[in-house]
Amino acid sequence: MSAAWQAPGALSRSLAGRIDALVGAVSPPDASRPADVQRHLDALTKPPGSLGRLEEVAVRLATIYGDPPPPLSRRTVFLLAGDHGVARRGVSAYPPEVTAAMCRNFARGGAAINAVARSVGAGVVVADFGVDADLDGLTGVVGCKLGYGTDDLAEGPAMSLDDAARAVLAGADLLAGRADDLDLAVLGEMGIGNTTSASALTAALTGAPVAAVVGPGTGLTPDGITTKVKVVDQAVRRVAEERDPLMLLAELGGFEIAGLVGVTLGAARAGRAVVCDGFIATAAALVAVRLQPAAAGYLFAGHRSPEPGHAVLLQALALDPLLELELRLGEGTGGALALPVLEAAGTLLREMATFEEAGIPGRDGSCEPGP
Amino acid sequence: MSAAWQAPGALSRSLAGRIDALVGAVSPPDASRPADVQRHLDALTKPPGSLGRLEEVAVRLATIYGDPPPPLSRRTVFLLAGDHGVARRGVSAYPPEVTAAMCRNFARGGAAINAVARSVGAGVVVADFGVDADLDGLTGVVGCKLGYGTDDLAEGPAMSLDDAARAVLAGADLLAGRADDLDLAVLGEMGIGNTTSASALTAALTGAPVAAVVGPGTGLTPDGITTKVKVVDQAVRRVAEERDPLMLLAELGGFEIAGLVGVTLGAARAGRAVVCDGFIATAAALVAVRLQPAAAGYLFAGHRSPEPGHAVLLQALALDPLLELELRLGEGTGGALALPVLEAAGTLLREMATFEEAGIPGRDGSCEPGP
Repeated sequence: MSAAWQAPGALSRSLAGRIDALVGAVSPPDASRPADVQRHLDALTKPPGSLGRLEEVAVRLATIYGDPPPPLSRRTVFLLAGDHGVARRGVSAYPPEVTAAMCRNFARGGAAINAVARSVGAGVVVADFGVDADLDGLTGVVGCKLGYGTDDLAEGPAMSLDDAARAVLAGADLLAGRADDLDLAVLGEMGIGNTTSASALTAALTGAPVAAVVGPGTGLTPDGITTKVKVVDQAVRRVAEERDPLMLLAELGGFEIAGLVGVTLGAARAGRAVVCDGFIATAAALVAVRLQPAAAGYLFAGHRSPEPGHAVLLQALALDPLLELELRLGEGTGGALALPVLEAAGTLLREMATFEEAGIPGRDGSCEPGP
Repeated sequence: MSAAWQAPGALSRSLAGRIDALVGAVSPPDASRPADVQRHLDALTKPPGSLGRLEEVAVRLATIYGDPPPPLSRRTVFLLAGDHGVARRGVSAYPPEVTAAMCRNFARGGAAINAVARSVGAGVVVADFGVDADLDGLTGVVGCKLGYGTDDLAEGPAMSLDDAARAVLAGADLLAGRADDLDLAVLGEMGIGNTTSASALTAALTGAPVAAVVGPGTGLTPDGITTKVKVVDQAVRRVAEERDPLMLLAELGGFEIAGLVGVTLGAARAGRAVVCDGFIATAAALVAVRLQPAAAGYLFAGHRSPEPGHAVLLQALALDPLLELELRLGEGTGGALALPVLEAAGTLLREMATFEEAGIPGRDGSCEPGP
C-alpha cells in the first residue's frame, strides 16, 4: 500500500475531501533521530542494552515526542461502542443487549476498564458510535451514534461507505477535541459480535485464511466457533475482489471499529502515540495504517491477545506487544496496563544520569561516556 | 524441604535463636479462601476468566490481604548492595568499584531503578550490606555493612555462617522497620560479581548442572562465560555434600543476597507480598523458601530474566513472571515494573461491579450473578 491512498469514487465528494485532509495531515514521527537517542541511552548508567525492550520503547517515544520525552502522564482510553447485525447469528457468547448494558456500566465506573484505568492513572472517554439502544442523556457517554447497530456483514455491507467515513471522521474529531490534554491514547472497544467483524477485516486486509483468524472471542463454544468461521468465510468471499481499506471497513467493520480508525489517525495527526489493545483495536489500527502508512510510527502494541487473528495483525503491523497476560476482554484493558511501561521508558531518558555525570567507571575501568 | 528447618550446629546459639524466631513467625497466607475469591471474580461484569493472569494475581493478593485487598499504593524497592571477592576472577563485564559508584548514583537518584521507581510510584531503600568502600554518611544509603565484600567463593566460604545469619536478620529488620508503611516489597540488588554467586547458589540448591545456570550477566564475553562456568563449578564441587540452605548461603552467597533472604522472610512475617526481580533476587527468594516454605505464598515473580539460571529458579519456586521485557539489569527494575499489574489486579476486586449490581444480562440472557 503506497502512501497515496485515493478515496473510492463511491464516497460522497465532501466526505472524500475531509478524509483526504485527515490522511494527508499525518506525518511520520521525526522529532529525534533514532541514532542520537540510542547514543543517549548507551551513555546512561547501565550496561548497554540492559534495559531490553524499554530501550526500544524509549527510542520510539523520543522519535515521536523528542529526547527527552515529556512525562506522558496525561493518558486517555478511547472506549468506543457499537452493535453488530451479525451478532444475531450466534457468533458471540453473549446477547447483543450486553453492549448497551456495559455502556451504562462504563458510565457508572463499574467495568474492568474503569478499574484498570484508575489504577494506571488514565481517563476513559466512552463514546456511543452505534449501540442498538438510546443512550442519549447518559452522563459519561459521548454521543457519536452512526446507527442502531450495523447490518449483517455476512449478507451485505455492514454500513454504507459514507457512514464508514463519517465514523472515521467522528473518531478523529473525538481525539482532536482532547489532544491538548493528552500524551498517550489507548484504543478500547465494546461491541457484542465485534471479533467476528475484526476476523473478517483481518482476513480481507491480510489475505490470511479465515480459519487462522477466527477464535473464541469472549468465550464461544466449539459449535459457536464453527458457525463463526462459516459467517466470516461468507463475508470475506463476498468482498474477495475489494482491496480498498475504507471499502473493506464499510463492508466488514463496525461503527466502533471505524471510529477507532479515526482515533488512530487523529492521534497520529496530533503527534501522539497510540497504544493498541487486543484483536479488535489492532484491526482498526491496521485499517488506519493502510489508509496512511505514516500512522505506523505512532503505534504501540500493549498486549498480546490469545485470539488467533491478533498474531496475523501484529505481523502485518510489525508490532511486538509489551505485555502478555492472557487477557481476552477488550475495553482497552491490555492497552491501559501497558501505559506504565511506556511511561517508565520515557522516564529513563528524562531522569537517568550518564556514566560521565555520575563518575562511574565503565568496562575498561575508566569513565564511560558512551561510544 | 520440610517446614521444620533446623539451624546448623555451627551457628552461634544466639543467632540460631533469632533466625529460628524469624522463620517460625512466618505463616502461610490465609486471609481469604481462594474459592470464595474466584466466585467473586466470576460474578464481576466480564466473561469468566477473561482477565487472564490478572485474575490469578487477584486471587493470590486476596489470600494475602483479604478480599478486597487494600489499594497497595505503598511500595518500596529494597535495593541491597554488596561486593564479591569472586569478582577479582574476571567473572563480570565491569570492575568491582562500580558497586560503590552505583550506590552513590542510587543515592543521588540517577540510576535506572530511581527512574523506574518514581515512574511507578515506589520508594527505593538503598542499603549497604557489604560494599567494598566506606559509604558512611552518604545520605540515602542505610548502613547494614557486614564486611568489605565477601571472600572468594571459589576457594572457600564467601562469608562465615554467623555473618550470613546476621545479614538475614538485618534484612528482616530493614523490612520490619518499614512494614507499617508498606503494602508491596520489591527485591533489588547491586553487586559486581553477584550473578556468579547466584549461579552457584542455584546449582547447589536445585541440583541443576552448572552449565545450565551460568549466563552473560550484564554483558560478559564468551571467554568470560567460560571462566565463570569454571569458577562456579569449582565452588559448587566444594560444597557438594552440603544441603542446608543457610550453610549454602554462607558458602556461595553475597551479603546483599543474604540480606534479601531476610527482606523476603521479614515481608512474609509481616503479611506483605514480595515481588522478585531477576535472577539474583529470585535466588535469594529460593533460599528464603528453603528456610521457610510458607514464605512461598507471598512471592510474585515480576520479570522473566534472559539469564538462564532464572528459569531454573522459577521452576523450583513454581512462579511465572508477569513481565518479559528482556531486562538484564537487576536493581529491582523488573520487579518495580510489575507493580502496576499487581495494583490493577487488586483494583478489580475492589472496584468492579457484579453482573447483578449492574443489571447486565449474562450468557443465557438473564442477569448473571455468577455460578
